[in-house]
Amino acid sequence: MDGADEGTEPAQGPTRGNVSDDARAAVAALLRIGEPGDGLMKGLVDEMGPRAVLDLIIAVATRQASANEAAAGVSTAIGTVAGAGQLSEALARWAVRGEESAGGRDLDSMQRLGSRLVLPTDPEWPAALSDLGPAAPLGLWVRGEALLRSVLLRAVAVVGARAASSYGTKCASDLAWDLSARGVTVVSGGAFGIDAAAHRAAIARDHPTVAFMAGGVDRFYPAANTELFRQMLPGGAIVSETAPGMTPMRHRFLLRNRLIAASSVATIIVEAGWRSGALNTARHALELSRAVGAFPGSVYSASSTGCHRLLRLHEAELVTCCDDVMGLLDLAEPTLFEDTAAAPADDPVDDLAEREKICLNALSTTRALDPGTIASRAGLTIVEALSALAALELTGLSARRDAGWVKLRRKKR
Amino acid sequence: MDGADEGTEPAQGPTRGNVSDDARAAVAALLRIGEPGDGLMKGLVDEMGPRAVLDLIIAVATRQASANEAAAGVSTAIGTVAGAGQLSEALARWAVRGEESAGGRDLDSMQRLGSRLVLPTDPEWPAALSDLGPAAPLGLWVRGEALLRSVLLRAVAVVGARAASSYGTKCASDLAWDLSARGVTVVSGGAFGIDAAAHRAAIARDHPTVAFMAGGVDRFYPAANTELFRQMLPGGAIVSETAPGMTPMRHRFLLRNRLIAASSVATIIVEAGWRSGALNTARHALELSRAVGAFPGSVYSASSTGCHRLLRLHEAELVTCCDDVMGLLDLAEPTLFEDTAAAPADDPVDDLAEREKICLNALSTTRALDPGTIASRAGLTIVEALSALAALELTGLSARRDAGWVKLRRKKR
Repeated sequence: MDGADEGTEPAQGPTRGNVSDDARAAVAALLRIGEPGDGLMKGLVDEMGPRAVLDLIIAVATRQASANEAAAGVSTAIGTVAGAGQLSEALARWAVRGEESAGGRDLDSMQRLGSRLVLPTDPEWPAALSDLGPAAPLGLWVRGEALLRSVLLRAVAVVGARAASSYGTKCASDLAWDLSARGVTVVSGGAFGIDAAAHRAAIARDHPTVAFMAGGVDRFYPAANTELFRQMLPGGAIVSETAPGMTPMRHRFLLRNRLIAASSVATIIVEAGWRSGALNTARHALELSRAVGAFPGSVYSASSTGCHRLLRLHEAELVTCCDDVMGLLDLAEPTLFEDTAAAPADDPVDDLAEREKICLNALSTTRALDPGTIASRAGLTIVEALSALAALELTGLSARRDAGWVKLRRKKR
Repeated sequence: MDGADEGTEPAQGPTRGNVSDDARAAVAALLRIGEPGDGLMKGLVDEMGPRAVLDLIIAVATRQASANEAAAGVSTAIGTVAGAGQLSEALARWAVRGEESAGGRDLDSMQRLGSRLVLPTDPEWPAALSDLGPAAPLGLWVRGEALLRSVLLRAVAVVGARAASSYGTKCASDLAWDLSARGVTVVSGGAFGIDAAAHRAAIARDHPTVAFMAGGVDRFYPAANTELFRQMLPGGAIVSETAPGMTPMRHRFLLRNRLIAASSVATIIVEAGWRSGALNTARHALELSRAVGAFPGSVYSASSTGCHRLLRLHEAELVTCCDDVMGLLDLAEPTLFEDTAAAPADDPVDDLAEREKICLNALSTTRALDPGTIASRAGLTIVEALSALAALELTGLSARRDAGWVKLRRKKR
């Protein structure tokens, strides 16, 4: 494994940090044991490291310790993560799938497929995913030539109904083509309908596109899109937190959606029926204070009812074309997605309280927003937003203009 | 004339108050002399009465006095309305059209057509139009059987592009049909396209519909809609503040639009191109703090670009059907359009400051709104809205709920 890590295939080399292969194998095993978005496992791994967590599970799985004993042994160390009872219950559940060698096997088999496991400590990790907090993935299986962090620096999710109309397919295709032409990466879910149309247009425009999968990246789902997935691999990426071989199931689709939302500056719903899964992606984007856009359509089309609902409830901005989406992005100053790894330590943003950072990200450099809009974008109350805005004004990061606030452009560093 | 006023045709009888025929003839003359929305003339009439204003103009027209002399003679009495210079200039302009007998002639000829002149002091006057303040009309020429105040108690404007698509025509037709079925009067401008489709569906549903015209009500414009206008007369009304025989001109269309907006609880734009006149109606409705709704459509349709612009700028709520529009209306408690003539004097609303009334009208009884939304609906700044909301809370007319404010239903009087 050591030697392989020094290889030059896209799967290795520049994408790896100083993470030990042991830690990587432990994460691979944990991704097989846990389900996506398991906040308790994520909290334990953050506190104890992946190897210690895996050891604990294996101990229970091999009956070296009962779940209660194992939980009691670590509960003081991880008291902030969970109570002993909750932990014991989780350990018992995880132990059912606990197997020491699973991680190493996955790393081996996936390497043969040209895939790699990217950890939060790797330089390739897309910083935006950390906004998910305890719901952030332990790691991501990545298949394809793209350096994930780079292609996701300017990414927009283009998602929607599987049962898309020809109108929706054209909207998705035109939008993805135009976004790609402007250097924005189209992120989607690889499904039939809107997703496929968006990926396809990005590929046709010869720009990387990224598909987040609900099942393992070793299998292309849906199989009918296999050729599309193959076309993504040069330059693009197919990504999943689900272990190889795992089948896509409903709850995995819903949790996969949070990765689509988190990795994108904006999520655009092109067409969605009343109960479309794309609305779940919009929900995740809203929770993350990401911009959400929705295409309008005929009031007589069932595949636009979900979009119209989002718009009526003011949960999405109406967008009709790439220009509208670019307006949402405010990419001229992509604070949210700037490469913080490269930023110097004296960035005034670093000194901001969390609430002020969120508020700053909710501002536009081009248009004065009123406190109500800012609060709604930032997920804050009006009072919280006003207090944060006052602080931002003092630091010179924002200013009042007309009846609202704008973000001030910072000097190039 | 006295005898005619006691007649029983729809043009007379219950619709008249104690206004003297002389005052009515004076207003008829002034409507021929001034242009719609002339705030200076309206201010003078409010201060001096129509007869005195007409006498002043006739004096200048017949050279009994110069415009300067006439202006100086009354400027102390009407000091708040305008300066002597501004007044002198207006008198000179009005005098060009000033003719003593014009008003009486119009009343006679329009009576033969079954039309009448309704004044703000008449019981038939729709109270909502007074919200226009100095831009309120001096009077309205009305043709048709409807009692204007009654049919406009629950009215929604359905307007849009003349060059409507078949999609837009269907939307307008379906909406007007459903609104009529619920007892809501459809108001529009009698134009080709969306307007005609809306009127037609209301007539088909056998419900009164009201057309506001840019020219005199003695001529049907556009002439190709003559049969449609004729069908409106039983039960409905054709209304204009422009004198008989006057031709519709661009500025009269734009000013006509304010009457459509003011007479309706909500203005719904079904289809509108990028520079459609319907957007002007929406603008008037916004300025009057009336609800504005817009239908979505294909992003590839030029006749939806205006609607999409309104929605993108948050100047309209997205509506897809009658239910959505009814949601906007909040007709369960139609404060805005309740028949204030019948309300007892101890209504707590009467004691409110103007800003608090506006704010109250911006609230919903069914849904908590955040201060930003309320401020935007009411046309107030956030600070003004918060101060008004505090006052409303003290009077028991509104209450905080969740993160916002709701209007409390008042006990039946």
